[in-house]
Parts: sequence; C-alpha cells; structure tokens
Amino acid sequence: MTVRTAFPPAAEPALRPRLDTGLPARFARSADTAPPPGSAQDTDTWLDERRAAHRFQVDRIPLADLDGWSFDPATGNLGHHSGRFFTVEGLRVTSTTDGRTRQWHQPIIRQPEVGILGILVKEFDGVLHFLLQAKMEPGNRNLLQLSPTVQATRSNYTGAHNGSRVRYIEHFTGPARGRVLVDVLQSEHGSWFFRKSNRNMLVEAHGDIPLHDDFRWFTLGQIGELLRRDNIVNMDARTVLACAPHPDSRAHALNTDTELLSWFTSERSRHDVTADRVPLAGIPGWKQGPWSIDHEEDRYFSVVAVGVQAGSREVAGWTQPLFEPKGLGVTAFLTRTIAGTPHVLVHARVEGGFADTVELGPTVQYTPANYSHLTGSDRPLFLDLVLGADPARIRYEARHSEEGGRFLNAESRYLILDTDADDTPLDPPPGYFWATPHQLTCFLRHNHYLNVQARTLLSCLTSGAVRL
Amino acid sequence: MTVRTAFPPAAEPALRPRLDTGLPARFARSADTAPPPGSAQDTDTWLDERRAAHRFQVDRIPLADLDGWSFDPATGNLGHHSGRFFTVEGLRVTSTTDGRTRQWHQPIIRQPEVGILGILVKEFDGVLHFLLQAKMEPGNRNLLQLSPTVQATRSNYTGAHNGSRVRYIEHFTGPARGRVLVDVLQSEHGSWFFRKSNRNMLVEAHGDIPLHDDFRWFTLGQIGELLRRDNIVNMDARTVLACAPHPDSRAHALNTDTELLSWFTSERSRHDVTADRVPLAGIPGWKQGPWSIDHEEDRYFSVVAVGVQAGSREVAGWTQPLFEPKGLGVTAFLTRTIAGTPHVLVHARVEGGFADTVELGPTVQYTPANYSHLTGSDRPLFLDLVLGADPARIRYEARHSEEGGRFLNAESRYLILDTDADDTPLDPPPGYFWATPHQLTCFLRHNHYLNVQARTLLSCLTSGAVRL
Repeated sequence: MTVRTAFPPAAEPALRPRLDTGLPARFARSADTAPPPGSAQDTDTWLDERRAAHRFQVDRIPLADLDGWSFDPATGNLGHHSGRFFTVEGLRVTSTTDGRTRQWHQPIIRQPEVGILGILVKEFDGVLHFLLQAKMEPGNRNLLQLSPTVQATRSNYTGAHNGSRVRYIEHFTGPARGRVLVDVLQSEHGSWFFRKSNRNMLVEAHGDIPLHDDFRWFTLGQIGELLRRDNIVNMDARTVLACAPHPDSRAHALNTDTELLSWFTSERSRHDVTADRVPLAGIPGWKQGPWSIDHEEDRYFSVVAVGVQAGSREVAGWTQPLFEPKGLGVTAFLTRTIAGTPHVLVHARVEGGFADTVELGPTVQYTPANYSHLTGSDRPLFLDLVLGADPARIRYEARHSEEGGRFLNAESRYLILDTDADDTPLDPPPGYFWATPHQLTCFLRHNHYLNVQARTLLSCLTSGAVRL
Repeated sequence: MTVRTAFPPAAEPALRPRLDTGLPARFARSADTAPPPGSAQDTDTWLDERRAAHRFQVDRIPLADLDGWSFDPATGNLGHHSGRFFTVEGLRVTSTTDGRTRQWHQPIIRQPEVGILGILVKEFDGVLHFLLQAKMEPGNRNLLQLSPTVQATRSNYTGAHNGSRVRYIEHFTGPARGRVLVDVLQSEHGSWFFRKSNRNMLVEAHGDIPLHDDFRWFTLGQIGELLRRDNIVNMDARTVLACAPHPDSRAHALNTDTELLSWFTSERSRHDVTADRVPLAGIPGWKQGPWSIDHEEDRYFSVVAVGVQAGSREVAGWTQPLFEPKGLGVTAFLTRTIAGTPHVLVHARVEGGFADTVELGPTVQYTPANYSHLTGSDRPLFLDLVLGADPARIRYEARHSEEGGRFLNAESRYLILDTDADDTPLDPPPGYFWATPHQLTCFLRHNHYLNVQARTLLSCLTSGAVRL
C-alpha cells in the first residue's frame, strides 16, 4: 500500500515588477544593429523569389461580377452572402466644432470584428529580431510587401475563409502563446473604416520557431533601412512597429505630459461628432455606376471591385470590393528642435469613422487633389509648406501603401520635415500641439490616441529609419 | 528722438519636466490630514443651512405635462424644443461573445456634448483643499449633496439654459485658468447613456478664490470621512476624485502592467458590440403609459418625468425626464491581499452605451431585483457572495446616488469586501482579472478604461475613506 502525503498548502504566489524596465534598451539595441553588408540586396532577391513563387493576378471587374457579394435590395449595402468579412454601408456624419456644423455622407467599410496584427520577436546573439512575412495583397501596386508575422481577421484564423490555418497564430492566442511585449487596440483609417480597430501585438517567442519560406527574421535596424525605401514594409507592419518603445526617452519637453493630455481632452471635447450608419443606396453626393461608386465631383475615393488569382493566400482565388482613393496622399510631421530636444507638431483630426471623435494625426494629412480647387486661406494649413519644401529640410521621405486588403493603390508620400520659428510657431493654431516622439509613443500603450498615418511616421522613428 | 533697439531674438524656451513627481505626495498628505474635531457635524450643519436656504421641491408629473419637451411624431424620441440638453431615444444592441449573440432594445439618454466636472484645488497651510458645492439635484432622494466646484454641460456654461453663469468656470476654461492636475474624459453609465463622456478635471487655483455661500474647502481626508456615510458626496465629485493619484504606488503586482493591458485588449476584442440608435416608438419589450415608459416585465428602469421648483439652480423652475431604476443596486469590489499587496478583482463589462465596447467595472454590479428570477448557475457571478457576506469582511459600505440630474432615486450599496482563495481564485473566471488599486488609478489618466461605478469605489481609496 502506498501512502500519499497530502498536497502541501498552495505557496503564496510571487509578485512581479509591474514594469519591464530593460525592454526599451533591448529594442534600441536591435534598432542600432547595422544591417550586414548586402542585406538590402539580399532582401530584394528574397522578395523577388517569393513574388515569383506565387501566381498572383488582380483585375478590375464590374461590381456585378463580384462572386458571393451582393447589394442588399432594401439598403443597397454591399456584403458577402456569408455575413462575414466586411460590408460597405452608408455613413452620415454631423460634426459641430465651436458652433459650426458640417454634415456629409460617404460610403464606409464596416468590419466589427477585431483582427490581430502580430509580430513575433526572438533574440538571436543578444539582438531582438522580428519575424516578417512576404505577403501578397491585391490592393498593393507592387502586390507583395513585408507584413507582420500574423495579419488576420478573426474570420481568417477561425476558418471563415475556408482557407488554410494562419501560420504562427498559436504564439499570439491561447495558453501556449509567448511573452506579450505589446498588446493594444489601434484604429485604422477613420475616413474609410467605421470604428475599425486591430490588436497590435509584439510577442516574444518561447522556444525554436520553424521558418516557413515566406517568413524571415529582421533586426529593427534592418526594417528601418527598408522603411527608407518605397512600398516595402506594409501598413500593418508599420503600425505594430510604431507601438515599440521609442529609443529617446528624455524626461523634459516643451509641454508636460499632463498638458498634452489636457489638450487632447479639450480637442475631444471641442468636437461633437455623430456618425450614423445609413443605407448606402442613394446617399447624397455619390453615384453608382457599373464599375464603381464615385463621389459626384470625383473626389475622395471610389468603391471598386477586383478579381484575384493567387497561390500563396489562404484561398486560391476570390473577388472583393476595394476602396480606391483619388490620387497620391501627402502625410507629414513637421518637426522643430526646441531647446535641443526634437518635437513634432501633431494635429487633432475628426474622421467620421473614429470610435472616439478625434485622434491625433500628423501635421499634414491630405490628398492634395481633393483641395486643388481651394485658394488662399481656404487652403489646408501647412500643406503648401510641405508641397514646396526645400529638399535640404526633408529628413525623411518615402512612399508607402495603406492596407492592401481593403484599399487599391492607396499610396502616400510620407515625410518628416525640419521647420523653424517662421514656419511653425511654438504657440500653434488651434488643433495643433507640440509633443516629443517619446510622449507620442507612450500614448501608444493605450487605445485610439494616434491615427494610423501618425503611427506610420512614428514607426520610422522607433525603427531608426530616421533619427531626429 | 528716441532710438529703439531692435527686439532681442526670442529666447529659446525652457523645457520642463514631463512629470510632476511631487504631486502624489501632496494628495497623500491631504488624504492623511485628519479632519478637525467636529468637522462632520459642522459639515452637516452647513448642509442643513444650504438646504434650508433654497426652496426646492420635486414632483412626479405625467409625461404629457413636460414643458418644452415633446415626443417626436415620427420617431417617438423625447426631446427639448431647443434641440439642446438631451434626448431619450431607442437603442438596439447586438453583442456577440465567443460565438453567442444577444440582442436587446432599450431607451437611452443621448447627450452628445461633453460637460465639465471640475474640482478646484488650493493649498492652505501646506495641505491641498478641494472646493465642493452644496448642490440640489432633482433625482437625489435627499436632494442636496456635495458636488464638484463646476458640474456643467456645455449648454450650462454657454448659457443655453438662459440661467446665471456657472461659478468658477473661468478656472477650468480659457486663458486665465489654473494649473491643470488632471483632465481626462471618462464615461458615464453605459446602460443609461449613449456614449456619454465628461471631462474630469482637477485644477490648482491661481490667487485668492472668493467663497460663495454654497461652496466650501475640504481636505481629501475630510471628503474620505464623508464618503463613509450615505449620500453625502455625489457621483460627479466621486468620479473626479477617483482620478487623483493613488497613495500606494507599489511597483510589484500579481500581473504586470503589460499583462493587465493585454487582458483588457483581449476583452475588448472578444466582444463584438453594435449599438444602433433606433426610434424610441415601439421598441420591443417596452411599453409607454401616461406617467412612464416601462419594461414589459417591470425590470431595469423606467423613463419618468418630474417638475422642479428651486431657488438655487441656474434657473428657477423646470420640468424634465429622468430615468428611474428598479430597486437598490449592489456594487462591490472583492479584494484579496496577495503576497502582502492588496488587489481587487475587476470585471470587463459590456454596456450598450459605451463608446468602446467594454470597460472595467467592479467585481459585482447588479440590481438584484432584475435577477431574482434566476437560480443556480444562472445567477450572476459573485453576487450571492456579496449579498451573504459576513459583516466582519466588509471593509467598506455606504449607499451612494448616481447622477441626480438624470436619474431618480438611483442608489447603490457600494462595498469593498475581503475575500480569500475559497471565494476568489488567483486564476479567475473569464472576464475577471486581478489588479492593484494603483494599477487601476494609473489607467484613469486615460479615457474609458474604468466605468463610473468602479470609479466611485476607487474614489474611496484615493480619498482614504478605506485603506486596504
């Protein structure tokens, strides 16, 4: 007979430090690690290989040729017969600021479920590396770009696409996942999405990670180098990287953290925004043709449809709607070094699809073609300063694509531009405020402070693509 | 002839420390300052005086007797002819969690403009004092309670009520305002308000402050003493005080800050909530009578109307709708001291009116009468533990009112209750998580993490009404 001893009383659990104070230095070391010679060419060769390995073709099709998608007879909303993925609906936005009311209607993408944008992180030889995927997206002009390890809607990873399983998802969800470094909901384009958020995650892997052909490890410094070039690093990777700790954590700034928070609160309070979903059919100012839904003055964007043939995606082929903006965007942070410390000028923006009225964007975020009819004081603030900038003052410029799974040829010139007191006063116009990059990246621990365009520019700072 | 020298070049501005590291100690000192002997009786005498000084009477009236308010013929929505104040509309909520979908309809208060709840702070003899107002509110059972210095919708302080100006508002807005210590948007009741937020402000006054009869200075310790009694400190004062720094800033916890943020993110992601405004007329499950709009099973709340006669308000008399909940609520944090450090068990709650799907509430937040028909495993988690609690384990209990300007006799028993491993496991059920009070009050620097009921309980900790 075996006598078992009673279980010992459960030990009191150990408490742990609330903050991982060593983490920022680990990210900084990865950003500082110079890419090995020939790294960029090597990446290009690999991307070309991956592009060649996958059959991929995108063709515009008439809206009526969308397969599995249809316009609801009652509302005119465009949706998939399964009820999943996303819908294109109408939105009526009423925005009142300081007593002045504007109202507009627009099509909007509605996708209530929250997706995961996750980058797996692992230390090799003492340096953090980030696992990126060479991923085809139908809306990208060059089709294939570097994306996060996991870029999946819940429909994706629960199988609603009837596709293959999402690689590496087990590191981000479930009991065996790795150590979470960053996990925060951030908005997507408020002008095109209705209250869309994604989970932005950085997870440090446990154990060995088998490497699939479409995946590669990069240091933050290597990614920074790639961010200096056009259309290599996709939007989803950029927004996740923006949430990494910023290397420059100076404790002084023009405005205290409380002043910055208070200004943000006052901006959210200053704007009363009501955004109501309405039937897409017949929304004022828009017209529907066989190939697209367009603004009557041919501004902003069109709703179009594409057919996709692909080998590397979760499914072999599909059709889908995409939003196609009108022309190249211009998105810029104006910077000033104030008392030796770099600051950027943020702009509190109302976009109809934001969950919370206002988010902070770059100083300039416009598609110039939409404003070409305006002159003098009607011109958007600071836009002409960027359009006419002396090249010597451009600290950073590259062209990047927005989410290629929802937007067609949606590209912007992203810039960071040195300015001085003549261009940008210390006491800026209403709606603008000075902050250090570190103050902004601290905000990225939390939901919905910074819009996706600002996050693209901040990813250039966290990765070291540009150092102010 | 006078020769003027050219202006010197503008001096480079000085940067300032981003954080005011001395502030938490100043709040702690005020919480630790024992009220002078007789302070409570003195406050009671003063409150009685203020109550006597103002004629104030509230009578229920039929909905048809509302003056200036009417039901829209098309939608049935109840609104004021000026288009201001607030409306009572219908809401359809569809909530999907882990594949299970619930849908319900309810009346909801819509008030898009953001108000200010502001407490003026000033140091006397080295101790911070807080300026509170003895304020009548029609929905409070005892009518008069202590409110923030300023408790005003934008309509109030811009004159839409055609009333007198809001006292002390100039310390919170405009160029001459004081030094902002706290300024953050926080939600109100998500079950009764549609995406309502208020600015919660603590502002340190510049210069002398003239004292009006309805106002008095209190230390945080004095307010803590008053919070131990029923219905003295109103909801608006409690939510602002919750945003003050928590005195116990221990750097260790059961869960790291990143784990807490990640859990919160996963809870927001786990619930897909769509809340659409619909016409109030004929919403399923509700019936309208001459005196009220009620749930068909007489649960949750009713929409009623009152007539008010008052001398101390911005206007002399008015009628208005109020929401009247069914019975006394029970709102409780369960606590456990883990490895010597107090923790509370927070609950991620879906309420239809939240701007962002989910906020963190107390462990228990129910009106028991609404659940009296449920038995066994259908009973709300932890509710019976609170209802049957051994009085020796009750660390805090008081009855407090919700916003008396919108809700009639909306009272809850607020409790903080000691538990142990038998009641509350370290690995709690889905939707629950352990956090230290300081972790939660750090969240209160930011929007929409903690609901208003959790903030009431946290105000008892920041004020020292209870010390865990």
